[in-house]
Amino acid sequence: MKIVALAGGVGGARLAHGLYQALPPGKLTIIINTGDDFVFNGLNISPDIDTVCYTLAGIENIVNGWGIREDTHQVLDRIRDLGGEAWFSLGDRDIATHLIRTQAIDQGGQLNEITRQLCLRMGIEAQILPMTNEPVHTKVQIKGGRWLDFQEYFVHLDCQPEVISFRFEGQEIANPAPGVMAALEQADLVVICPSNPWVSIDPILGIKQIRPVLADKWVVAVSPLIGGKAVKGPLMKMYNELGIEPSCLAIADHYRDFLDGLVIDTIDEKETASLKAFGIITKITDILMKDAGDRKRLAEEVLEFGKILKQLK
Amino acid sequence: MKIVALAGGVGGARLAHGLYQALPPGKLTIIINTGDDFVFNGLNISPDIDTVCYTLAGIENIVNGWGIREDTHQVLDRIRDLGGEAWFSLGDRDIATHLIRTQAIDQGGQLNEITRQLCLRMGIEAQILPMTNEPVHTKVQIKGGRWLDFQEYFVHLDCQPEVISFRFEGQEIANPAPGVMAALEQADLVVICPSNPWVSIDPILGIKQIRPVLADKWVVAVSPLIGGKAVKGPLMKMYNELGIEPSCLAIADHYRDFLDGLVIDTIDEKETASLKAFGIITKITDILMKDAGDRKRLAEEVLEFGKILKQLK
Repeated sequence: MKIVALAGGVGGARLAHGLYQALPPGKLTIIINTGDDFVFNGLNISPDIDTVCYTLAGIENIVNGWGIREDTHQVLDRIRDLGGEAWFSLGDRDIATHLIRTQAIDQGGQLNEITRQLCLRMGIEAQILPMTNEPVHTKVQIKGGRWLDFQEYFVHLDCQPEVISFRFEGQEIANPAPGVMAALEQADLVVICPSNPWVSIDPILGIKQIRPVLADKWVVAVSPLIGGKAVKGPLMKMYNELGIEPSCLAIADHYRDFLDGLVIDTIDEKETASLKAFGIITKITDILMKDAGDRKRLAEEVLEFGKILKQLK
Repeated sequence: MKIVALAGGVGGARLAHGLYQALPPGKLTIIINTGDDFVFNGLNISPDIDTVCYTLAGIENIVNGWGIREDTHQVLDRIRDLGGEAWFSLGDRDIATHLIRTQAIDQGGQLNEITRQLCLRMGIEAQILPMTNEPVHTKVQIKGGRWLDFQEYFVHLDCQPEVISFRFEGQEIANPAPGVMAALEQADLVVICPSNPWVSIDPILGIKQIRPVLADKWVVAVSPLIGGKAVKGPLMKMYNELGIEPSCLAIADHYRDFLDGLVIDTIDEKETASLKAFGIITKITDILMKDAGDRKRLAEEVLEFGKILKQLK
């Protein structure tokens, strides 16, 4: 069974790691949001790619979910002392990744190939693909109308401003990275990881050809909400600010064009009926991933759910 | 008394630090070799500027002479693990300097201004100027005829190949950095620091206008050789390979166009007569700088020697 997962940040990386553990080598492709990518201190940073890679390599910082475990911060501390920008946390070992990526991009390298090389060096046997090699920039419109760069909103302003809408600059002209469409076309099941639908999954879905192909695929999502709350990040806050009740139904509605099944937490069992009325089959289980064992167990349940769905429909 | 020092690497930085201690704020300009500058892992590195800055800021690695004291090497160790180039040692705190410089250059900044800003942040009250803001690349021709980039020869090949000549790519069209000619014109004394004449001082001297103006100035040099040996670096080896006896006379001959006086070590006292015959007045003292006190004492003797010379001639 060939699986494609769509993933953004920390929650997505955790399920991706579960799938990686649950599947034989060579069966998993992870397509990753690059709308958060930005340049900081001259370094090309791809936060979601790195979070997935570090997690699959087993070196992620367990407390943060992003960055490398037990990393030091000598470079950024010194940049701060020298009056440089230091609002985005970068560990020293993490900076090595960014230096290699930046140099390769400056020499005309493509992000998918650079990512492949880094994965090889980290011993990662899944195919990790950026959604596109071309620039796409997630922008967040805040109350009053101003548009912020994603990292400005997400990190620098700590998600404090009230959100009114999102756009993905460059998305309409960006092509899927090499390998993305082939992986989707060959996929027996597409898994939408428990990432933020607005700012982690929507940037991927809007890349031309991706959303249309999903309509022809078996697609299951794992809810990023548990009891109406996000495990991490501003998703609940965003739903409230957008005037939408944060619920599993809101997640299903977000993916209504192509979603077949939704995995929700036992705490949200009461939503099963409304989801059924909405045409979505649910799988109820414990979806909070506290450790690597949880990730694998949840991934196995997601894969099993996908198999059953294919028989049902 | 306004002083201009010409300096390259570690020995030059040490005397520059002595002059910095010996002179009141605002009286010292140091013009620094940039022929060794290169790009490594995408970072714009200016080794001689950094060595002088770190030394004047009192944060230099005392064992190496270059780099920052007690620096860690997390970034480069990780770059090595990821298959990147790691033959040039870069500490983590040192990398902060290179990131700030690289970003500023990419944004159109000029090296003299970038250096000025970094010095401000490091609390350095001397004027530290690159010889030029334009690209000059020191090349070393080795036996067999091949030309090597300086850092390839100096660090990667550890000065092992036999040297037959040098050139400084771009030197003939490069302009002195803003401030260089003004400082030289206003200088009451020019001090050639005990740096390698072939690869640290010659790149500076060949920048148009610099050598001609020196002929009109009081110029003293401190010998980089003690008993025919360099304290650090490949100078003695170079002299031998070029078929020249490494001596204070060879140093004086190198600077014959403009040199007035040479400070030599007590161990080389026997050279005084031949130097006198060559038209050079010598000052004999202990020129090995083992600590900050030695640097200041030697600098004071150099300044005093300069004052005496001006009365003599």
